[in-house]
Amino acid sequence: MVDIATRVWNHKWKIDPIVRSLIDTDFYKLLMCQSVFRNHPDTQVTFSLINRTKSIRLADLVDEGELREQLDHIRSLRLTRGESTWLRGNTFYGKRQMFTPAFMTWFENLQLPPYHLEKIDGQYELTFEGSWPEVMLWEIPALAVIMELRSRAVLKTLGRFELQVLYARAMTKLWEKVEDLRHIPDLRLADFGTRRRHSYLWQDWCVQAMMEGLGNNFTGTSNCRIAMQREIEAIGTNAHELPMVYAALADSDAALRQAPYAVLADWQEEHDGNLRIILPDTFGTKGFLDRAPDWLAGWTGIRVDSGDPAAGAETAIAWWQSRGEDPRQKLVIFSDGLDVAKISELHQQFAGRVRVSFGWGTMLTNDFKGLVAGDALAPFSLVCKAVAANGRPTVKLSDNPNKAMGPADEIARYKRVFGVGEQERVEVVV
Amino acid sequence: MVDIATRVWNHKWKIDPIVRSLIDTDFYKLLMCQSVFRNHPDTQVTFSLINRTKSIRLADLVDEGELREQLDHIRSLRLTRGESTWLRGNTFYGKRQMFTPAFMTWFENLQLPPYHLEKIDGQYELTFEGSWPEVMLWEIPALAVIMELRSRAVLKTLGRFELQVLYARAMTKLWEKVEDLRHIPDLRLADFGTRRRHSYLWQDWCVQAMMEGLGNNFTGTSNCRIAMQREIEAIGTNAHELPMVYAALADSDAALRQAPYAVLADWQEEHDGNLRIILPDTFGTKGFLDRAPDWLAGWTGIRVDSGDPAAGAETAIAWWQSRGEDPRQKLVIFSDGLDVAKISELHQQFAGRVRVSFGWGTMLTNDFKGLVAGDALAPFSLVCKAVAANGRPTVKLSDNPNKAMGPADEIARYKRVFGVGEQERVEVVV
Repeated sequence: MVDIATRVWNHKWKIDPIVRSLIDTDFYKLLMCQSVFRNHPDTQVTFSLINRTKSIRLADLVDEGELREQLDHIRSLRLTRGESTWLRGNTFYGKRQMFTPAFMTWFENLQLPPYHLEKIDGQYELTFEGSWPEVMLWEIPALAVIMELRSRAVLKTLGRFELQVLYARAMTKLWEKVEDLRHIPDLRLADFGTRRRHSYLWQDWCVQAMMEGLGNNFTGTSNCRIAMQREIEAIGTNAHELPMVYAALADSDAALRQAPYAVLADWQEEHDGNLRIILPDTFGTKGFLDRAPDWLAGWTGIRVDSGDPAAGAETAIAWWQSRGEDPRQKLVIFSDGLDVAKISELHQQFAGRVRVSFGWGTMLTNDFKGLVAGDALAPFSLVCKAVAANGRPTVKLSDNPNKAMGPADEIARYKRVFGVGEQERVEVVV
Repeated sequence: MVDIATRVWNHKWKIDPIVRSLIDTDFYKLLMCQSVFRNHPDTQVTFSLINRTKSIRLADLVDEGELREQLDHIRSLRLTRGESTWLRGNTFYGKRQMFTPAFMTWFENLQLPPYHLEKIDGQYELTFEGSWPEVMLWEIPALAVIMELRSRAVLKTLGRFELQVLYARAMTKLWEKVEDLRHIPDLRLADFGTRRRHSYLWQDWCVQAMMEGLGNNFTGTSNCRIAMQREIEAIGTNAHELPMVYAALADSDAALRQAPYAVLADWQEEHDGNLRIILPDTFGTKGFLDRAPDWLAGWTGIRVDSGDPAAGAETAIAWWQSRGEDPRQKLVIFSDGLDVAKISELHQQFAGRVRVSFGWGTMLTNDFKGLVAGDALAPFSLVCKAVAANGRPTVKLSDNPNKAMGPADEIARYKRVFGVGEQERVEVVV
C-alpha cells in the first residue's frame, strides 16, 4: 500500500538534506567547543577545507549549486528542543550535566556563520571565518556534505538494481568485518567515522550493525545525533585544533613550547577520568612526552593518531614507565588508518600491556573500495582544519610529515622549537 | 513517517501467505491443465510430495500447524478478475486467446481439492487426490509452500541485521551471476525457479534483477503471477506428468509404448511454433527418439531435463540429422541442474549448432548455499509428482536412474517395453 501522504511529502523536498541536525557532528567537537567558549570565546579563526587527494577533482564531480544548497541548509539548522534536552539531561562518560547552562544557552541560539566557496583548479576552496566556538562547528558537517555529495555524484549513474546490489555488497563487506572483529576478546571499539562517511544513512546502518554484531564490545559512536537516536554512548575527547590554535596565539618561542600543555591544563580543569586523554602528536609525540609536566603522566591515556601506531604505543608505554606509572592501568586509543587487520594486530600486540581501545573511522563508514567501476567510491583524504587564529597561521607537524600543515617558514620554526628531527613518511590514504 | 494504517493492517495478518494467487504457478501447468481439461477431464490422479534429500527432516523443521495454515490458505484462493483478464487478454508465445473460454470459465470457478497430510519418519507425506485438472494445480504451490516454510524455519533464529546481511549476501551472489551471464552473447535464459524458490518475494527480486541486468537476453519467467506483475513473457511448455499419466492409463504394452507419442499428438492439435517442444526423457531419451514418428522431427525443439545435458543435446542433434532436419533451426532448452558455469559451458558448446535456450531454476531462485551456519539453507531436492492415475501407479525412468520413480516391478516392465538398458547415475542435487 502506498502511503500517499509520505509520497506527496517527498515531492516537496527541495533538497535531500545531508546534515539534518546541529548535533550530527562529533562529540569531541562539542566538548572542545565548550572549552573554547569558556577560555577563548573571542579568538578569531579561519577553518579551511583541504582535499589531500588531489587526483579527485571535487569541483568537477560535485555540482556547486548542490553544494551551496547543502551548506545553506546547515546554516538554517538550530539546536532542537529534543537535542538540547538530550545534551542537558544525558550522562556522558559517566557524568551528568557535562554541558554548562551558559554553554547550552549559547548553543541553543547558535546559527553557523557564513561560508566562502570558490572553485580553484578543479577543487573547492571552502573557508569559514569568525569566532572560534562558532567556526569550529563547521568542520564535521562541511566534511560530511562534501563526502556525501561525492558519493551521490558517483551513484547517479547507477540503475535501481545496481544500486541495491552496491549496498548489498557494502553491507556484506561490513558484516564480514564484524564477524572478524567478533573473534577479538574484550575488544573496545567505537565509531569515529562521521567526517568521512559515505552518507548519514549508511553511518547509521553501520552503527546499528555494530550494535547487533559486537554487543558491548562496541562502545559507542562519535556522532551525537546517532548516539541520541540509538541510545548509545557518545564518544570522543579532544583534537589537534586546540594545540594548533593555542600555539598560533603564542607570543614567543617559550610560550609556543608551553602551548600544548596549556591546552591540557585547561582541559584538566574541566574533565577527569576517561576524558583525560592526551593527543600528543600535534608537534611530534616524542618531544611532547619528554618535556611533559609530571601531572600529565597521571592522565588516563593517550590517543595515537599518526605515525606508526605500534611505535606510538611503545613510546607511550616507555614514557609512563619512566614516570613511574603502570601502563596496564593506562588507556591507549588507536584512531588512525584502522581496518580489521590492523585492529586485530594492534589488539594482539598491546592487550594486557595497556588498556586498548579503537576509534574506527573511514574504513567503517565509507569502505566502498572496489564496489563500483573505476573504483569511483574509493575513500580519499579530506580534512577541514584551523589554518589561522587571530591572523596568524597555524601549524601541525604530526608524527607523519605527509600530514604536516602550515607555511614552510613556520613549520621550520615549530620543528626547531619542538626539537623535531627527521620523521618517517607514512602514506596518507584517508 | 509510520503509515499507521499499514502497520495496523499488518497486525491483523493471521498468516503471512506464501502463495498469494492461483496463478502463482508455472505457466506450463496452465497449458497442460487446459490440455488435460480437454482430453482427460475425468481421469482420477494422486499427486504426492517426495523429498529426495532424506537428510533434511522436513517434519522436524517445519511446524505442521503452519503448513496446514498455508495449504488451507491456498484452498481459499480463487482466480481474481484481474488474473482472469490477463489470461484471457494477454499474448502468450505470440498467440492471443491461448486459453479457451471453456477452460477459463472452469478455472474461474476452481477451488483446489482437499489435501492429505501426515508425518512419517521425520518427513511430511502430503498427497492430493481427485480429477487430474484440479489435482495437478497443487504441484507448484505445494512445493513453494514447503520450500518457503523451510526457509522461514531456518531464518527464525537470525537477528535483524544478520537477516539483512543474509539477503545482502544473496543479492550480491545473484548479481555476480548476472554479471557473468552478461558476457555470453545472444544468451536466451528464462526463470524456471518457482517450485524450489527461497520465497515468493525473493523470486520476484531475482526476476527484476535479471530484467535490469540481462535486458532482452532474459526471456521471461515461468511464474504467471510474476509475469503478469512485471509485464514480461510467461514461459513454459509441458512436463513429465503428461507421458507418465498417459502411460499409466495404457491397457497393453503396445499402448504403453505409444503413450508418449499420444501425448504429443494431442499437444500438436493445440499448439505450434515455440510451444512444440519435445520432452523426451520420461522413459529414456534414446529409445523415445529412435521410435519417434517422423512428424515429431518437424517440431521446434527439445527440452533436456535429465542425464548429461551435453550428451542429451548431441543425441537430439544426431536424431534431427538422421531425420533430414537442420539442427541449426532447432531449439534446445536446457533445464536441469543449471548454474552459471554450466550455462556458459553449454552455450559455448552448442551456440551456432542449434538455437540454445536455458530454463534456470533452483540456483537462480534459491542459491543460499554457504550463507548461513551449518549451510541450513542449502538447496535440496523436493518434487511433487503424479504417482497414480485411475488407480494404477505411474512410472518415470528419466535419463538418470537416481530420478526414477514408481514400483520396482512396473519400472522393470517399463524398462523392457521402452528398451532402456544400463543408465549412468548422476547425483541429484536439486
